[in-house]
Amino acid sequence: MLYLVGLGLADEQDISVKGLEVVKRCHHVILENYTSILHCGVERLEQFYGKPVQVADRETVESFSEQILEKAVDEDVAFLVVGDPFGATTHSDLLMRAHRKGIKVRTIHNASIMNAVGACGLQLYAFGQTVSICFWTEKWRPDSFYLKIAENRKMNLHTLCLLDIKVKEASEENIIKGKYHIYEPPRFMTVNEAVDQLLQIEAERGLGVCGPDTLVVGIARIGGQDEVIACGKASEIVKHDFGAPLHSLIIPAPKLHELELEALLERFSIAPRN
Amino acid sequence: MLYLVGLGLADEQDISVKGLEVVKRCHHVILENYTSILHCGVERLEQFYGKPVQVADRETVESFSEQILEKAVDEDVAFLVVGDPFGATTHSDLLMRAHRKGIKVRTIHNASIMNAVGACGLQLYAFGQTVSICFWTEKWRPDSFYLKIAENRKMNLHTLCLLDIKVKEASEENIIKGKYHIYEPPRFMTVNEAVDQLLQIEAERGLGVCGPDTLVVGIARIGGQDEVIACGKASEIVKHDFGAPLHSLIIPAPKLHELELEALLERFSIAPRN
Repeated sequence: MLYLVGLGLADEQDISVKGLEVVKRCHHVILENYTSILHCGVERLEQFYGKPVQVADRETVESFSEQILEKAVDEDVAFLVVGDPFGATTHSDLLMRAHRKGIKVRTIHNASIMNAVGACGLQLYAFGQTVSICFWTEKWRPDSFYLKIAENRKMNLHTLCLLDIKVKEASEENIIKGKYHIYEPPRFMTVNEAVDQLLQIEAERGLGVCGPDTLVVGIARIGGQDEVIACGKASEIVKHDFGAPLHSLIIPAPKLHELELEALLERFSIAPRN
Repeated sequence: MLYLVGLGLADEQDISVKGLEVVKRCHHVILENYTSILHCGVERLEQFYGKPVQVADRETVESFSEQILEKAVDEDVAFLVVGDPFGATTHSDLLMRAHRKGIKVRTIHNASIMNAVGACGLQLYAFGQTVSICFWTEKWRPDSFYLKIAENRKMNLHTLCLLDIKVKEASEENIIKGKYHIYEPPRFMTVNEAVDQLLQIEAERGLGVCGPDTLVVGIARIGGQDEVIACGKASEIVKHDFGAPLHSLIIPAPKLHELELEALLERFSIAPRN
């Protein structure tokens, strides 16, 4: 049997009681480690579970999938995913192959940024489609996420922006040299970088999505003890220090419900009180 | 200190390890019991926590809010919410008042239908705004949710439809007689009722949102051992038995990604195989 177990947002203790029991019972435990990160290391997980955890990253996940499918025919395998198992991907390939092999699958859900974002006081109902903001390079400056935010704002909906993560990626220079396995240090896009890119696109396209005076909300390490939720004008948030990863950004709808505005301004504003 | 603790989707064991520790440590434990339901009763929670749980329903939540705010100044209070604490409401009033009294608040997040819906194989990124479908009465037949689904479909986005819950509500007849406290039996809208209403609106408005041949997905008791995810034409799903509550409905985007379509048709279709 294959268990997809969500680990939640922050550390080893965010797993559910049900999830922990499953992990303790399973013969094999594999962590999907490339679409998000916990605030704690794998060692903490191993210690907490009292058993070894194998780590599947972007490069090895395919071979791990093979192993998972082979083993789950007769044994219990736990595939751990940070957040909810379906937060970042549907795991369609793995689940389809499990289905075809007649392997039973059970999901133990958990929190993901997709619902935890409600902590900032904005109604989850009033969010439109979620967008991903990716790192620009010198030559590659996509801005399709800007247009999606514009669509959401036109319908007076909020937008959750997930920010880019680069883990175990080789530099262009090394790829050209064929050195695929010399990795750059991991990079996690900050709220500042995301807002800066949006301000640049706004200056070019001018659809009123994110100008210097637009109210935006930055979130860091949500669910952790040191979580930060901070709201202010884009021109202020772009300079605000949110600390360590992971960061997310919210571009609220143009017209906020009274209670939403009150929550943002009174509980999370970085502006000095008058 | 005030802790908002998400209980997750199904039963007492869906609380996180962190959440359980908080509940065990708290002096007062109050369950918000009107925006969603667990598959188990309050007694199971009490047994699991080893302490009494007070139940706040729609009528008593205001007086419980007062109590929470009074007690949380000096003591630790856990306010339990089915799903994620911010899934159905922002709890803005409670949190604003806590903020003004200088009461520290900490949130222990958990899964909610808003992210667990990814279990059906549709990308969470490709969902537009969430809608609520409410019970019609003889005279009151709102259809604004239909227009929101139409907006999502125009942008090729999926729609999660949350289905109405009526708990502790008096009948119109009894309200007229002043008998506010004679409650009707609880009602939970089924996938069938929701699809039936959509088919009726479609017949009138004809925007192509949910006709007899539209592919729709019904979900029941997500996260539970007897969870059901079933996909088919609206004319078939409207007759399909999904069993006990809670139910949710998804109206997928008109054009699905290949992997999404494969998941729906191969893993969740109710149509007999050719």
